Amino acid sequence: MENNKQHMFNKEVYLERRNLLKKELGKGKIFFPGSQTSPINFKDNYYPFRQDSNFLYFFGIRLPGLFALIDIDKDEEIIFGQESTMDDIIWTGQQKKLSALADSVGITKVLPLISINSYVDKNIRFLPPYRPDHVLLLHQFTSLSIQEIENNKDVELILAVAKQRSVKSQQEIALINKAVTLTHQMHREVILAAKPGMKESELVGIAQKYAWQVECRFAFSPIMTIQGNVLHNHQYHHTIQNDQMVLFDGGLEIPEGYCGDITRTFPAGKNFNSAQADIYDVVHNAVEVANKNLRPGIKFIEIHRLTCIELVAGLIQLGIFKGDPEELVENDVHTLLYQCGTGHFIGLDVHDMESFGEEWIGYDDSVSKKTTFGWKSLRLGKALQPGNVLTVEPGIYFIPEWIDTNKKNGHFSDFVNYENLERYRYFGGIRIENNYYITENGAEILGDPLPVLRKEVEGLRHLVAPPENPVFQS
Amino acid sequence: MENNKQHMFNKEVYLERRNLLKKELGKGKIFFPGSQTSPINFKDNYYPFRQDSNFLYFFGIRLPGLFALIDIDKDEEIIFGQESTMDDIIWTGQQKKLSALADSVGITKVLPLISINSYVDKNIRFLPPYRPDHVLLLHQFTSLSIQEIENNKDVELILAVAKQRSVKSQQEIALINKAVTLTHQMHREVILAAKPGMKESELVGIAQKYAWQVECRFAFSPIMTIQGNVLHNHQYHHTIQNDQMVLFDGGLEIPEGYCGDITRTFPAGKNFNSAQADIYDVVHNAVEVANKNLRPGIKFIEIHRLTCIELVAGLIQLGIFKGDPEELVENDVHTLLYQCGTGHFIGLDVHDMESFGEEWIGYDDSVSKKTTFGWKSLRLGKALQPGNVLTVEPGIYFIPEWIDTNKKNGHFSDFVNYENLERYRYFGGIRIENNYYITENGAEILGDPLPVLRKEVEGLRHLVAPPENPVFQS
Repeated sequence: MENNKQHMFNKEVYLERRNLLKKELGKGKIFFPGSQTSPINFKDNYYPFRQDSNFLYFFGIRLPGLFALIDIDKDEEIIFGQESTMDDIIWTGQQKKLSALADSVGITKVLPLISINSYVDKNIRFLPPYRPDHVLLLHQFTSLSIQEIENNKDVELILAVAKQRSVKSQQEIALINKAVTLTHQMHREVILAAKPGMKESELVGIAQKYAWQVECRFAFSPIMTIQGNVLHNHQYHHTIQNDQMVLFDGGLEIPEGYCGDITRTFPAGKNFNSAQADIYDVVHNAVEVANKNLRPGIKFIEIHRLTCIELVAGLIQLGIFKGDPEELVENDVHTLLYQCGTGHFIGLDVHDMESFGEEWIGYDDSVSKKTTFGWKSLRLGKALQPGNVLTVEPGIYFIPEWIDTNKKNGHFSDFVNYENLERYRYFGGIRIENNYYITENGAEILGDPLPVLRKEVEGLRHLVAPPENPVFQS
Repeated sequence: MENNKQHMFNKEVYLERRNLLKKELGKGKIFFPGSQTSPINFKDNYYPFRQDSNFLYFFGIRLPGLFALIDIDKDEEIIFGQESTMDDIIWTGQQKKLSALADSVGITKVLPLISINSYVDKNIRFLPPYRPDHVLLLHQFTSLSIQEIENNKDVELILAVAKQRSVKSQQEIALINKAVTLTHQMHREVILAAKPGMKESELVGIAQKYAWQVECRFAFSPIMTIQGNVLHNHQYHHTIQNDQMVLFDGGLEIPEGYCGDITRTFPAGKNFNSAQADIYDVVHNAVEVANKNLRPGIKFIEIHRLTCIELVAGLIQLGIFKGDPEELVENDVHTLLYQCGTGHFIGLDVHDMESFGEEWIGYDDSVSKKTTFGWKSLRLGKALQPGNVLTVEPGIYFIPEWIDTNKKNGHFSDFVNYENLERYRYFGGIRIENNYYITENGAEILGDPLPVLRKEVEGLRHLVAPPENPVFQS
């Protein structure tokens, strides 16, 4: 971890973050369990370590097995952990001393793990645990029952941390911008490398090679698929055929922990065919509508509604839907082909702070979450603020089973031309996703530019060398 | 998971494995929790799913959230899980029905998760849980306390499963052979791609690209380092300089779950320098000694001892150690430069069945584990049997802090020429690792050949294109 230091902010940043939290809460002892390693198939064979985002935000140290305490009443901050032994040095190399790392984030009190029990009891405050190891350790330290720990919702703490993490500093925005720029470059590498005859998995390999090259990791398991209609498709065994499209939804996490989350859909050949081009343009128009409307004060549920209306308007033009776009959206007709939400916060997590519970992060007193199909998948509804960083990701997804179910049940029959829709049965899906931050007056797209207009995407594909096997040549 | 089926054995294999287990144990109800997904930084952002190896061995289905029961007394086998809903289809695509998957491994009774409580109680038998989610779920299902679950050691069950999994069938050996052949090819790609001026992380990217290309995954986080002396080095931020060596310890896991685990150390330039060549040959001679001696009946602790003697003999020749090789090993002098064990079982886990506890897997009544430094890291000591599959991985590691500690404390001073040793202070480390299976009469190396002789490794390096930046050219 000798290069840990360079991926931390200055000491003052952490001191200020913790001071803000203390001021906001006023009292109590807050316990932050850092991440443990996560076993794959036995304890010592673990996945690549990722520090818990709240620990990272307030304490910056990226090592497993640490715990931190902020005692507001005593104005004391402690990091609990073990200094390296000779065995550690032999197995994992000379490490920076924990006390030095703690000092670099403004903490002078470092205690061994054995001391935790003297500082932590059942009155401790903690954020909702999302990892089973945290549940077990909190149980061990606090003597609270498993159920008490799992059901813990310290709403005041959740809201205080969310308030801080939701509004990004200029320094954070610069880092997210870097993550998005690298993510864009990863997409470019994939779009330039894809050829009919390749497997989806090969394209994931090209993306991952780039990630390693720039010392980043995947922020999440990417979607790389010719079945763009499967919303969270994490399988990669199809061979890409000419006339198909590839949907790539992937993001890089930089060593500081911040990430990008970008989607492009591109043709396996050089150009989209005409049906693909039509749907692509409808989705792109929806991106443009969101672009134009993002600003402080607007509720994101309204961005979602405007996006849905634009998608529906385009689908009416294509003869798939019929009627008035606003009326169709009021009747949830869009959910037949757009089953998910238009965006979410990003930051240290690709769905930022999702572990706190969406009701506290994406919604508030003025906007509560709808529970109906489609709307229930919208992670963000509340009014935007300067410093928010978020995704906009409209799409159109032709899911045969879902279309059949709705058709069979006579759903939306006044608004849908099911006969015309049938022609798109095996179309797949298209999604376009950009990342934005909200400024004082509007919004700025993050990252160096990546082609997004249909003609720009096709332009990239025209730069691709012809495939080795000419049988696939378009 | 539509391609799950092709990565399973025939139904009869699973039926036979379970029947053998039932026969061996004679009574009781055995509960097998499959793996859950492992969260990274929130619940729905999880690491690539890996099925628990015991679940995989007895039930073959590679899906998260499943549980299985073998009730020997009632001669009943059940898989518990949830069939897909329409929401699942929308988000993750059309899945094969769980009942069909269960049938393909010879199980006709499939029940929803809610039924587990009626079948499982505190008398249930289970293998030692190594995942925190398993501990929590066992607690929930059995009402046993967390401590009772974590301390559970059903030795009879452990030994029965270990007996089966330790002896690989011809079908399993063929699969491991495939995993090793692919692993060898991954090593070849790395050795052919490495150039001075690259970062270690770029080489990991080249390895991982190959893994995706052949639809495999890393069986464990690879070691790719110019600091070969750090035994489990999972950092990759160094730039490779001419005159250095790269140690790559990596293995691929094929979709069936079986893996390889191979190490090569190669020069960053075209050739090893003379000091590197000397040490390389010493390590390679130790590989040869192990090669010659592997056979059924020999205790692996003896293979380790013979390997240590050969390493020590070579180091005496180089003037680093002095005296009689056997005497030095008796006095643990080898542990100054060879701090770990010579090998371990591999199979579905890269340290096969390590979660059961090494004392039950690598040792038995006739060989118990030594607890002294060096020897305590030997995972395998007991007599070998036909069908065992294992690694042989001698090495020499110059760890400055460890040398200093021993020198300062006057350890081994009769046997070590510390002045000569000082010249190797910043040498790094060399390891060579092959995978073998034990036959009726001896042992066979697994996988298509990969260069291992010093001249062969240098030969591969001579095929590398010159680096782009000629300043690094040797």
